[in-house]
Amino acid sequence: MTRLGILGGGQLGRMLLQQAANYPVETFVLENDENCPAAHLCHNFYKGDIRDYETVMAFGTLVDVITIEIENVNIEALEQLENQGVKVIPKPAVLRTIKSKIRQKAFYREHEIPTPAYVVTDSLAHLEAQADFLPAVHKLAEGGYDGKGVQILETKADIAKGFDAPAVLEKKVQIDKEIAVIVAVDQQGETVFFPPVEMVFDPYLNLLDFQLSPAQLPEKTTWRMEAIVFKLAKAFKSPGLFAIEMLLDRQGEIWVNETAPRVHNSGHHTIEAHVTSQYDMLLRILLGYPAGNTEMLRPSVLVNLVGDKAETGESYYNRMRDILKIDSAYLHVYGKSESRAGRKMGHVTALGNDKVDLVLKAKQIKQIAKG
Amino acid sequence: MTRLGILGGGQLGRMLLQQAANYPVETFVLENDENCPAAHLCHNFYKGDIRDYETVMAFGTLVDVITIEIENVNIEALEQLENQGVKVIPKPAVLRTIKSKIRQKAFYREHEIPTPAYVVTDSLAHLEAQADFLPAVHKLAEGGYDGKGVQILETKADIAKGFDAPAVLEKKVQIDKEIAVIVAVDQQGETVFFPPVEMVFDPYLNLLDFQLSPAQLPEKTTWRMEAIVFKLAKAFKSPGLFAIEMLLDRQGEIWVNETAPRVHNSGHHTIEAHVTSQYDMLLRILLGYPAGNTEMLRPSVLVNLVGDKAETGESYYNRMRDILKIDSAYLHVYGKSESRAGRKMGHVTALGNDKVDLVLKAKQIKQIAKG
Repeated sequence: MTRLGILGGGQLGRMLLQQAANYPVETFVLENDENCPAAHLCHNFYKGDIRDYETVMAFGTLVDVITIEIENVNIEALEQLENQGVKVIPKPAVLRTIKSKIRQKAFYREHEIPTPAYVVTDSLAHLEAQADFLPAVHKLAEGGYDGKGVQILETKADIAKGFDAPAVLEKKVQIDKEIAVIVAVDQQGETVFFPPVEMVFDPYLNLLDFQLSPAQLPEKTTWRMEAIVFKLAKAFKSPGLFAIEMLLDRQGEIWVNETAPRVHNSGHHTIEAHVTSQYDMLLRILLGYPAGNTEMLRPSVLVNLVGDKAETGESYYNRMRDILKIDSAYLHVYGKSESRAGRKMGHVTALGNDKVDLVLKAKQIKQIAKG
Repeated sequence: MTRLGILGGGQLGRMLLQQAANYPVETFVLENDENCPAAHLCHNFYKGDIRDYETVMAFGTLVDVITIEIENVNIEALEQLENQGVKVIPKPAVLRTIKSKIRQKAFYREHEIPTPAYVVTDSLAHLEAQADFLPAVHKLAEGGYDGKGVQILETKADIAKGFDAPAVLEKKVQIDKEIAVIVAVDQQGETVFFPPVEMVFDPYLNLLDFQLSPAQLPEKTTWRMEAIVFKLAKAFKSPGLFAIEMLLDRQGEIWVNETAPRVHNSGHHTIEAHVTSQYDMLLRILLGYPAGNTEMLRPSVLVNLVGDKAETGESYYNRMRDILKIDSAYLHVYGKSESRAGRKMGHVTALGNDKVDLVLKAKQIKQIAKG
């Protein structure tokens, strides 16, 4: 049996392990928190820091193939493990490129992937000198997550909100739509992608509000998007699953915003709405099987369940029951022991017939979830 | 969080636990073999004999709701736990009825459920006295599984193959088709069923050869079958999931063969081919949520992977890879540590467009699987 190691034990690891039980594989998870969402679903749990070189090295020697469910891992250890013959998917070189927004932007530029114009800033003082570049989006080079590490700077008055650390200052795009596409590259190099999805964001919390699948796009836009996505996936020169977030501006231009080299929130709906889920796809890739069919079975909507409601108590159960009364709605709770404002505690996917049906379901779910 | 106990740790428990991770539930498994298919997917594993009164009692006090994944459990303990306020689904009274083929047949007769004519035999001597009843099927009252405990007695010469123990001797039906329907009854009493599936059996091993979904049936047959299935589900007076196996004879009559009060092999295809899977459905019932939508997303075929090939080695991987090259095929391996002739080691579901497509895929899968 293949021994598969996963760095990180959050909800993405949890859902990957749910699917892993379909395959001849022995699973290993490394994560600091032994009560993490993935801990009870693996064969072997190791408590340890995924950012620590020695810890990742020791863990890596136990497995045949290793992957990540969060970018913030020790890349040096993964490079060393790769040299020693452990299969690392995606390749550490890709993680190195993506982990830093500065390197990620340079990679897009180098490979002629359309991405908003930008300058690199090292400090607040440096940022102030770039005031003419506003309105822009200031993104911390490393460590941002779920809307943290991103500031929108409309005017000079906003500059104080910027980061006094290495960051990317990116021209603000007049966004028409936010789109995500998940691309999969198997070990034989076959590249397939899931149909684009469309997102609506909450302007205050900067967290996903709800997601519609498939995205409503003109055919030509879809074609251009496909071309960009394939070019980018090829440029990474690595097997793996890549979630590519794109902005469609009001002139119909497509801009790559960022890439996550792993299973992603924007692909949760594939569990029920597509022939192959993103989790199943990643497992196929990790285990050397051919990529699966990405075809859509039904249109769907995806709503995140965001803290701060704990997953216990009568009122929580009643809300979940009300969500499950909605036709073709699927609950996914992540089993997080602590709830915090803004933390993703679960998600709901609902299948539907058309956009009107789906938007109605999304609103019902959000209404019930907030209690 | 609801504490859910499962008696038994085989593949049915494994697939139930894969789905359980979507819900706010803490899972407990009782099983004698700590390397069983379900062991690594629960929060709390207890090694112990599910047939032992004290063991089941001790386990039962740890949980809020308890279910089974195999019938061969200590029913007295479940009755006692039910009296003490533990929710037992299905009700122990149903398990008691179903566990003995003699009581099960009497139950059908009492509730006017069509079932083949039968006599009860206590010994081989008794069986010999019933020679005029042949051709018939001799079924051991208790302990039969996967074709064991069943003998077809065509003529008097076959009588020696019968059981020298309490058994049911049932008139042999001239079978046109074997059909299975899964019915679900939630805690609010709502009763829903999955579309019927059709099976083809291997005449030598008496193990499922492959299964087609949906069954190809005349509309009137479907209606009659629905009526029978609802009547039977109501008669059990218990929430739960019931797999009802039926025979369609050459005159178009429907006969209930037997019922399993749990998730069942004939429902594996629902994982990918239906809006709600049988596992998801049972969890909804166990946790007090409303029954889900049973609608079919795509027609499907189901092939069991039967021993005696161990789930290791290069040639095994190559066979699995070849299966996964088939469009919309899903692999499910059960992680059994030992392979034996006739043992179910996994299954493959494939989605398809029509019967021709599906039968072709089933044959491809069987061809590859046998190596």
